[in-house]
Amino acid sequence: MERLVVFGLCIQGYFGLKMVDLSYELDSDAITWPFNPRFNMSIMHRGMWGHAWLENNRIDLAEHTGTHADAPNHVAAGEGPWKNHQIPIERLAGPGVIIDVKAKAEANSDYRVTKDDIMAWETRNGRIPYGAVVLMNSGWQKYYPNYNAVFKTNNISDSTSYHFPSWHEDAIDWLISSRVVYCVGVDTPSTDYGQTDTFPVHLLLSKENIIGIESAAYLERLPESGSTIFVSLLKIRDGSGGPIRMFATLPEDDENESNMAAISVVSPTLKLASFLLLGILCF
Amino acid sequence: MERLVVFGLCIQGYFGLKMVDLSYELDSDAITWPFNPRFNMSIMHRGMWGHAWLENNRIDLAEHTGTHADAPNHVAAGEGPWKNHQIPIERLAGPGVIIDVKAKAEANSDYRVTKDDIMAWETRNGRIPYGAVVLMNSGWQKYYPNYNAVFKTNNISDSTSYHFPSWHEDAIDWLISSRVVYCVGVDTPSTDYGQTDTFPVHLLLSKENIIGIESAAYLERLPESGSTIFVSLLKIRDGSGGPIRMFATLPEDDENESNMAAISVVSPTLKLASFLLLGILCF
Repeated sequence: MERLVVFGLCIQGYFGLKMVDLSYELDSDAITWPFNPRFNMSIMHRGMWGHAWLENNRIDLAEHTGTHADAPNHVAAGEGPWKNHQIPIERLAGPGVIIDVKAKAEANSDYRVTKDDIMAWETRNGRIPYGAVVLMNSGWQKYYPNYNAVFKTNNISDSTSYHFPSWHEDAIDWLISSRVVYCVGVDTPSTDYGQTDTFPVHLLLSKENIIGIESAAYLERLPESGSTIFVSLLKIRDGSGGPIRMFATLPEDDENESNMAAISVVSPTLKLASFLLLGILCF
Repeated sequence: MERLVVFGLCIQGYFGLKMVDLSYELDSDAITWPFNPRFNMSIMHRGMWGHAWLENNRIDLAEHTGTHADAPNHVAAGEGPWKNHQIPIERLAGPGVIIDVKAKAEANSDYRVTKDDIMAWETRNGRIPYGAVVLMNSGWQKYYPNYNAVFKTNNISDSTSYHFPSWHEDAIDWLISSRVVYCVGVDTPSTDYGQTDTFPVHLLLSKENIIGIESAAYLERLPESGSTIFVSLLKIRDGSGGPIRMFATLPEDDENESNMAAISVVSPTLKLASFLLLGILCF
């Protein structure tokens, strides 16, 4: 039996993983809540410095900018849920669950993901895995980073005019009571939809110390199940969230996704030959 | 043969991964190069906001602060090497190689890791894997974040007085010409040692578009081989580096490391029973 385990690890080690980038570039165009200051980079040095070229910059941003995470303390029932530095690292990763509602969001900018959308995912893919990172793909990426398009408004300073899809609180309530999830997110600016004025999804997630993810990028690159998503939130002391370089890993031979950045590409014939060779070596 | 592969994936999926946090908290104590401004967090809101509690902060920092990465353009022979947003995500992860030089660094604050140190690692662990993340563990964590202790100086504004260990350029030259590595780092403030005035290691790494890592934390939690390290650098447009939430994954049953944050702890007997059950199900 031990030899089987060794063989399993050989396979994993040899073929490695594909990585998929799920973050937008961070610059002054990055979407943040409109009352926040925009991201700013100040060049401290860019040019020769002695005999070497030196680039050195300073950055200034609201924590909730671009592809970012909400710590549980961001919008809560009161003080107490986890701040950034209190989140254990293993809560910032998990099996990727992508809920595709592109058609419904295209038809209705105020669409909210329902329990039925989750059930349909489970019918195709099985039960949501323990510790999952569950993300809505509404197709909103096509609007990023055009503020008026992302918030579907002509007046970005009036939050009552915002229209973008997100989660319905009933779906979140069911997720929390019936499954174990570590992170819940969206490819839009908020885990509550544009027309909210009570932020029920934020409050439900916060109560369970579940991490929120906003402005997730490139979800089209992922299969609806089978990825592992990493939400690498900066460990800002007392932070309420922060920008993330979010990414996913996929088994190297996954055929359901379109990522071109494979660490290595091996032909099926070569794979089979390698399996045989490894099998002989391990047994 | 396909059943063997399925069995291998069953094992991997069932037992999951341990995660190990390799980042210091980011706050105004965080170590940065002394001529840089310190990290600063401004509270924009912390208190009730309508019917909910809201925390919302703004952060301001030099890119090279705390546990952070150097993009290849940071210190280079000229303009041209990768800036943050140009680094492919798969170059920000790889098999972890931890070179322990604690005893030598304890005896000599100007110690530089040699090719012999790498050779000794390979004698114990085999050839450095393709795409590795190679980190020096000098034990410098015991000084963090005390500036005078980390830089071993009484005058932090005089860079000629700095003493801390790092890489020797001959070792880096050999690594680059003889192995394929994606990231090279240290648990001290720079990939060049404190007494440098020419930064040869930065220049060598930059030329090959290899990512640098500085102020890596908690390297004691990792085995010297067998981990996978993720260097989640923010995708700052035109950035020269940035703070990272660095972490590693380990097979859940690794017995060589001391991380207590296992996602799940399963007894050896239960593991054996599960292997048998999975084997029966898969075959």
